[in-house]
Amino acid sequence: MRPDHVAPLPLGFERDGATEEVVEQERGVYGDLAGTLRELVDLTIRTEVDLEVVREVQRDLEVVADRLRPRVREGGYGVHVGADGRSRAWGNAVVGLRNAIAPPLDVRTDGVGRAWCEFSLGAAYEGPPALVHGGVAALVLDHVLGCAAGADGRPRMTGTLTMRYRRGTPLGTLSAEASIRSVEGRKAFVVGHLADASGPTVEAEGVFVLPRW
Amino acid sequence: MRPDHVAPLPLGFERDGATEEVVEQERGVYGDLAGTLRELVDLTIRTEVDLEVVREVQRDLEVVADRLRPRVREGGYGVHVGADGRSRAWGNAVVGLRNAIAPPLDVRTDGVGRAWCEFSLGAAYEGPPALVHGGVAALVLDHVLGCAAGADGRPRMTGTLTMRYRRGTPLGTLSAEASIRSVEGRKAFVVGHLADASGPTVEAEGVFVLPRW
Repeated sequence: MRPDHVAPLPLGFERDGATEEVVEQERGVYGDLAGTLRELVDLTIRTEVDLEVVREVQRDLEVVADRLRPRVREGGYGVHVGADGRSRAWGNAVVGLRNAIAPPLDVRTDGVGRAWCEFSLGAAYEGPPALVHGGVAALVLDHVLGCAAGADGRPRMTGTLTMRYRRGTPLGTLSAEASIRSVEGRKAFVVGHLADASGPTVEAEGVFVLPRW
Repeated sequence: MRPDHVAPLPLGFERDGATEEVVEQERGVYGDLAGTLRELVDLTIRTEVDLEVVREVQRDLEVVADRLRPRVREGGYGVHVGADGRSRAWGNAVVGLRNAIAPPLDVRTDGVGRAWCEFSLGAAYEGPPALVHGGVAALVLDHVLGCAAGADGRPRMTGTLTMRYRRGTPLGTLSAEASIRSVEGRKAFVVGHLADASGPTVEAEGVFVLPRW
């Protein structure tokens, strides 16, 4: 092997060569910014201040937004790979540090075939009154089942996914977990569920497939 | 029937008695605010301005957010019913006018058993690089299949939902559609798909159930 050998990256991954120090600075600043935006998203749904104040807030936000516009990358954030080889999916819709749409989930795995997380879903994730949107339950379960499927370090893509809604999932503190039932060739069969303090609310099973790249 | 008879509302719906004029004012102001927030969510993922500017932007947003805090309702927005009896699910995670997480989808129905919409998903909905997160596809499909199931004016809740991922869904302009295949008692069997310009990317089928209330 040549001394300058660098392993090829999966499709769409990009090396930005960021040092650990730069990554930690960005983690702090962008984590705070996305956190403040999550509060603004929540307040925009729940505030009851006078409409004139809301209008002023909108104008002020427009001015602040302009300061982020001078340099904007094309397309999504994708996956960046730093100087130490570690990857950052900071734009991801479920776990992205820089994505205010993401709760964000902090999914743990056992390194073999199990994944789990605890999190809280507020007003922004509502479907029926006071309940989590059924599609948000699917969004979370797709991701957590995917993490279980890829817990061994080999990321797999969703092939099929089935949800069974047992009862409404209340907004608030929730948990999700998933584990691989079996593996056949490139396919992993995974089961899991979303739960509140009283137990499972939505059950899921899926087939996750190892990409050919 | 008594002249003051008022039909009972589904669980969690609340009458706020807002006149058509007030509703239209709120629609304009909150629609603009959520729109500006969607831009901020996108910019937070894609901006490449200096980190010091990002830090300043975060501090400024924190100050602006404080102006929405003096009066905040408890819990989610739920469903408000105005003076004319029309309902507003403005906090909904997929279609909510006041929800910056929602793309938002503008779902049309035929009043019988079909629903469809066109929309665009940007960087905030990313999973694998340049592709829509598989869970976001599920989020959209759950909602559009649910709209088809309730197209006849009788809202049904998701019972089961199965997605088949045919290929990656690129970020950008997309469409979704769904229709009722059959109805048996309280259950509606619905099929649909998510598509880009080249055709379907994710297929879905689900059973939607009429609540007993």
